[in-house]
Amino acid sequence: MDLTEKTLSKKHIYSGKIIDVDVDEVQLPNGETSQREIVNHSGAVAICALTPENKVVFVKQYRKPVEKVLLEIPAGKLEEGEDPEEAAHRELEEETGYIAESLELIADVYTSPGFANEKISIYFTDKLKKGNVHLDPDEFVEQIELSIDEINDLVANLEITDSKTLIALQHLLSNYNHSK
Amino acid sequence: MDLTEKTLSKKHIYSGKIIDVDVDEVQLPNGETSQREIVNHSGAVAICALTPENKVVFVKQYRKPVEKVLLEIPAGKLEEGEDPEEAAHRELEEETGYIAESLELIADVYTSPGFANEKISIYFTDKLKKGNVHLDPDEFVEQIELSIDEINDLVANLEITDSKTLIALQHLLSNYNHSK
Repeated sequence: MDLTEKTLSKKHIYSGKIIDVDVDEVQLPNGETSQREIVNHSGAVAICALTPENKVVFVKQYRKPVEKVLLEIPAGKLEEGEDPEEAAHRELEEETGYIAESLELIADVYTSPGFANEKISIYFTDKLKKGNVHLDPDEFVEQIELSIDEINDLVANLEITDSKTLIALQHLLSNYNHSK
Repeated sequence: MDLTEKTLSKKHIYSGKIIDVDVDEVQLPNGETSQREIVNHSGAVAICALTPENKVVFVKQYRKPVEKVLLEIPAGKLEEGEDPEEAAHRELEEETGYIAESLELIADVYTSPGFANEKISIYFTDKLKKGNVHLDPDEFVEQIELSIDEINDLVANLEITDSKTLIALQHLLSNYNHSK
């Protein structure tokens, strides 16, 4: 069966700073029509950075949509036309002051493909040197570094509540446990 | 530092079937104001189900926002007031025809906390019996079952592009490899 849904018409609802919203009228595989609500996002990057002391660099950040401070790996959205790996280098230094000598892509996922097109590229690095923090004017974060044991406990107790962060930490723990 | 952003005013942009959109004017920790775009979603559940033949049950589904057919574990959104575990039982049977005798919560994460409040509860089960498929009228999915070896390859080659599915499979592989 061809599962593709053909766009019959597009209604533009909203243009914002981070997202745009459209509603598409689509033709379903059985010929009927339906509506799909679509949040357009430029895409994002996140970085799991392991320090020479074997600690992972996190940021604590207030996330207005969920009204909570979340523990996350450093992340940010792509600027227009920006290459994801370049963006990852930029965001890591801006948010944490660390410069990565190299980055390894460990996951490339859609966060909420049911209603949004945001794709996030998640990188790992253990090649860090010190640079300078430069936060956006409306960005307030606290930096924190946690050990592998602390991360193991947070993951096991379901205390990591940000999806990109959980993906990165599961990958880290799995490689770390394999190599022990 | 108190990272909380106080809501100064709220502008309602859109009410849809799956999402609502608001723009909040907020007070930042430094006293300045900014705008936050917020996609409201009722929340969702996903289920990683392992059959008696040691295969995981997947659905292939066209996702209009990303214009692709994605390989995902069964999932769906919460109905109003619905308990996540009940929703997981319901969605698993509706999408795959399997009934889970019990479910274990393995992750509870915000998919895109920068712009959306969607929370997804991800469950695991290896206690399955046969029930009946009942898809929503605008839902078209193909069911497929994959072995642990096939899943290992898909994850290692970064071919899992849905975030909830990757979280569930990393959890499965990690427990599976530990118990070997």
